[in-house]
Amino acid sequence: MIENNIHTVFDKIKGRQDKEVFLKQKAKVIWFTGLSASGKTTLAGMLEKRLFELNYFCQILDGDNVRSGINKNLNFTNKDRLENIRRIAEVSKLFMNCGIILLCAFISPTNEMRQMAKEIIGEDDFLEVFVDTPLEVCEQRDPKGLYKKARGGEIKNFTGISAPFEPPENPFIVVNNTNPNLEETIKQMLIKILPELKFDPLTTL
Amino acid sequence: MIENNIHTVFDKIKGRQDKEVFLKQKAKVIWFTGLSASGKTTLAGMLEKRLFELNYFCQILDGDNVRSGINKNLNFTNKDRLENIRRIAEVSKLFMNCGIILLCAFISPTNEMRQMAKEIIGEDDFLEVFVDTPLEVCEQRDPKGLYKKARGGEIKNFTGISAPFEPPENPFIVVNNTNPNLEETIKQMLIKILPELKFDPLTTL
Repeated sequence: MIENNIHTVFDKIKGRQDKEVFLKQKAKVIWFTGLSASGKTTLAGMLEKRLFELNYFCQILDGDNVRSGINKNLNFTNKDRLENIRRIAEVSKLFMNCGIILLCAFISPTNEMRQMAKEIIGEDDFLEVFVDTPLEVCEQRDPKGLYKKARGGEIKNFTGISAPFEPPENPFIVVNNTNPNLEETIKQMLIKILPELKFDPLTTL
Repeated sequence: MIENNIHTVFDKIKGRQDKEVFLKQKAKVIWFTGLSASGKTTLAGMLEKRLFELNYFCQILDGDNVRSGINKNLNFTNKDRLENIRRIAEVSKLFMNCGIILLCAFISPTNEMRQMAKEIIGEDDFLEVFVDTPLEVCEQRDPKGLYKKARGGEIKNFTGISAPFEPPENPFIVVNNTNPNLEETIKQMLIKILPELKFDPLTTL
């Protein structure tokens, strides 16, 4: 489709570095992967809160604001799940090019999906966080009764029950989130993440 | 598709007002509509530059960063053009909910398209700028030879030639961009736009 592209090119618009200087931070995409009910959105929300207190400017993308908007015309077939992740990665890239730190919380169960996201976003900017909560624990939590419905066959293609979850091979962070001390977990995440967000104005000279 | 939505709800994430406080601005979507080569992206780029100098934090969306990413799997059929605008409006809404001022530069030739964008974004937040450059002037400019190709039949469904442009009925700003004094045009736009972007912390109390 690119060859049909009839847009004008305008290279004077403010670029990523201008935005990073404005916000005094480096933009990254922190990508949470894990089973349903593993704690991805909870951790992303807490991390955002702490980063915000430290004067970092973030945006969370999760099912809540994505499936109800940009991706509302997608379903849960394999094809649509891949398109779901593709659009999320492209939206993340737009935000990142605006200097913003993204916290993306999506099951994103396969290596193929996460690899695609990483390629769109760029390897250096893609920080993968594996929320490693065992299936039994997630199924016991089951805050919305989804595992129960999946076991009963009411939900098809449910990750962990009737669709595979492939653990990431080399994540930036692994969070053991079975019996979490959330404050301590967030602290350990910040120790790894904060150096990645540190903006050095000397690099702009 | 909404009813298939199996995401978790998390209401503790930072909302629009937190972000507007952080950036000390009100988020709006400034939507430029007009013919190809009417000057939409040029004006959006100049406006962003001036707003940035005044310490406003903006993001431009135009064909350049949208058609090459989130919308690269769309074509120029009527159905895809509508989906193009729908996704752009949804992305704009995500940015706006992050406190950011959007400058969207898209031909968006029909009332139907702009009405859909306005409904997604919300009427109060949608500031429509009609870049009113006559077809003859745009065709004379023709920086990329697109009008010539459209006249020759090489490009189908080209707005103004083989597809309609419906002027907006009640735009927030009309820019007469035939023989523009660009500096003066931007100044007049800022006079109208700046009051809309002014953040009043008293409203958060």
